[in-house]
Amino acid sequence: MSKYCFGVDLGGTTVKIGLFDPQGTVIEKWEIPTRKEDNGSHILPDIAKAILDKIAERQIAKEDVIGVGIGVPGPVDEHGIVHMAVNLGWSIININKVLGDLLQIPVRAGNDANVAALGEMWCGGGKGCSDMVLATLGTGVGGGIIVNGKMVTGATGSGGEIGHIHIAEGEPDACGCGAHGCLEQYASATGIVRLADRALANSEQDSVLRAVKADGKLSAKTVFDAVKEGDHLACEVAEQFGDYLGKGLAMIACVVNPEVIVLGGGVSKAGDILCEYVSKYYKKYVFHGCKEAQFRLAILGNDAGIYGAAKLVQ
Amino acid sequence: MSKYCFGVDLGGTTVKIGLFDPQGTVIEKWEIPTRKEDNGSHILPDIAKAILDKIAERQIAKEDVIGVGIGVPGPVDEHGIVHMAVNLGWSIININKVLGDLLQIPVRAGNDANVAALGEMWCGGGKGCSDMVLATLGTGVGGGIIVNGKMVTGATGSGGEIGHIHIAEGEPDACGCGAHGCLEQYASATGIVRLADRALANSEQDSVLRAVKADGKLSAKTVFDAVKEGDHLACEVAEQFGDYLGKGLAMIACVVNPEVIVLGGGVSKAGDILCEYVSKYYKKYVFHGCKEAQFRLAILGNDAGIYGAAKLVQ
Repeated sequence: MSKYCFGVDLGGTTVKIGLFDPQGTVIEKWEIPTRKEDNGSHILPDIAKAILDKIAERQIAKEDVIGVGIGVPGPVDEHGIVHMAVNLGWSIININKVLGDLLQIPVRAGNDANVAALGEMWCGGGKGCSDMVLATLGTGVGGGIIVNGKMVTGATGSGGEIGHIHIAEGEPDACGCGAHGCLEQYASATGIVRLADRALANSEQDSVLRAVKADGKLSAKTVFDAVKEGDHLACEVAEQFGDYLGKGLAMIACVVNPEVIVLGGGVSKAGDILCEYVSKYYKKYVFHGCKEAQFRLAILGNDAGIYGAAKLVQ
Repeated sequence: MSKYCFGVDLGGTTVKIGLFDPQGTVIEKWEIPTRKEDNGSHILPDIAKAILDKIAERQIAKEDVIGVGIGVPGPVDEHGIVHMAVNLGWSIININKVLGDLLQIPVRAGNDANVAALGEMWCGGGKGCSDMVLATLGTGVGGGIIVNGKMVTGATGSGGEIGHIHIAEGEPDACGCGAHGCLEQYASATGIVRLADRALANSEQDSVLRAVKADGKLSAKTVFDAVKEGDHLACEVAEQFGDYLGKGLAMIACVVNPEVIVLGGGVSKAGDILCEYVSKYYKKYVFHGCKEAQFRLAILGNDAGIYGAAKLVQ
C-alpha cells in the first residue's frame, strides 16, 4: 500500500502544496491563493480544504497519509506555535493543532526558511549530508541550519536567523530589523545593490555598471553579469560581498561545523561564480577544523519549501 | 534493580571518572593519572581497568551498566572517532570501538568542551533547558552547543569551536590557531590580560592594575577584582571584554537561538558581574527574536565533564 505526505509552503500571496511519496518524489503540485483578509482566518481552512479535496479526488485512504508539513513566514517554535506572522495577519496560533484538527491528519509546522533548508538537504543541494547550512540570498538573507538531519528551530523559533548576524561596525544605514551592520545589509540582493551604489559613488573608475545604474537597472543580477564580463568595479563589489558572506558563514561554521553550505535564493542564479567568491573568504576566516565544508548551489528553487515541509512529517 | 552509568573526563594529566545513577547523582568519583608515554597507548586500557575494577569492587552486574561516556580533548566525530588528540599522543582512534571492546560495555565519546556543555544542561547552569550554549572561558575559549537536548558535534567534530569565531579586524597578534582576531584572543583569561595590558599601555590614567602588573600578577581574576573595587581602567577593560564576548554570543544566537547561555571556566569565578557585562552587549548586538536568552554561570566546575559524559550514554 502506498504512503503519502503533503508539503505546504505558505507564502504572502500564494500557498504552494505538493503531494509526495516518502522517497521525495513529487506526485503533484499546485497552488491556491493566500486569503489574508479577516486577520488571515481563512488561510488554514483553505489549505485544509485543498488537501482534503485532493485526497478525495485521488481516492487516497486517509490512513495512508503520513502527515502534512507546513512552512510559515514567521518564527515557529518546536510545538508548531507561530508567534506573530505579520504578513499573514496572525498573532499567536498553534498550527499543528488548528490545521491538524481541521484535517484529522498529523501536522507539523516550521519556519519557511528552516523548512527550505530541510528540503535542500532531502532532495537538493545538500542531498546526502546531515549537517548543512542554507543561506537564502533574496531581498533579505534567510537561513536554515540542519544538525544531524534535523532543523534547528531554537528556543523561540529564531534558529537560523543568519541574516541578522552583526557583521560590520559603523554602518550608517539601518537594517529592516532596526540594527546596523547585519549580514543581510551586504549579502542580500538589496545589499549587493547597496555595495555597488557605494562603489560607484566612491570611485571614478569606468564601469558598465554606471550606465546600468543610469537606466535604473542596478541589481544583483546586473552586478554579477558585469563580474562575468570582467568589469573591474563589479569584481570589487563581488569581493566585498564574498568577504561579508564568507566571514558570516565562517562564524556559523564555528558553531555547527557543516559538511555542506548551500547558497540559494535569487542571488544564487549567478551560478558557480558565487560559490567561488564566497568560499574564498570563507576559507580565509574559518577555523581550520571546519575548512573542508563544500559550497553548493541550491537546486530546488521555489519548490524547496514544499519538499522540506513534506520531509518535516517523516 | 539499580542502573548505573560511568562518565569519564580524559584530561592531559588526569582522568576523572564518575559513577552515576541515571538521574544524575554522583555515587562515587575518583581520578587516575593519564599515562601519555608510548603514544598514549596505555590510556584506554588504564580507563577500562579502573572501571572494571570499580564494577567488581561494588559487585555491580555488568548488565546494569547502561554505558560509559567519555570526553576527549580533541575533535570527535559522531561515530566516536578522534582525529588527532595531540595532547595525548593520539592520531586516529575509534574510541567507541576500542574502549567498548576492552569493557564489553557500550561506549560513547565526545569532545570534552561539548560534553561539558551536556553536563551543565543535565545538572548544572542549564538545567531544565534543551537549547543551550556553554562558553568556557579559561586559558582559551571553548564551547559547547546543545540543540534539542543533544550536543552539536558537527561534520568533523568541530561543532562548538566558538573560540575561533572571527570577531575583530586588524588584530596584530596571532591566535593559537594561527588566525588573527579570534574571539578567544579577547574573551579568554589570557585575552583579558592582553586587553588590560593594552589599556595600561595606551592610557596614563591611574589604576590599581599598574601595581598589580608591576608585581607580575595581572590576571583575569585581578582585573575583575579591580572592577569590583570600581577601578576605572579595569571597568573599561571589562566593557571591551563584554563587547567582544557579547557580540560573539549574539552571532551564535542567530544560528541556534538558545534559551540559556552558560558562562563557565576560570574566568566565570568573577561571578554575576561577568554575566552583567556580557549580557549588556549581547542585547546590543543580538537579533530581537533571540533577546530573551538568559545568562547563567556554570555550576559544575571541573565536574561538568564527568556529568556530561555520563549523560552521553543515556
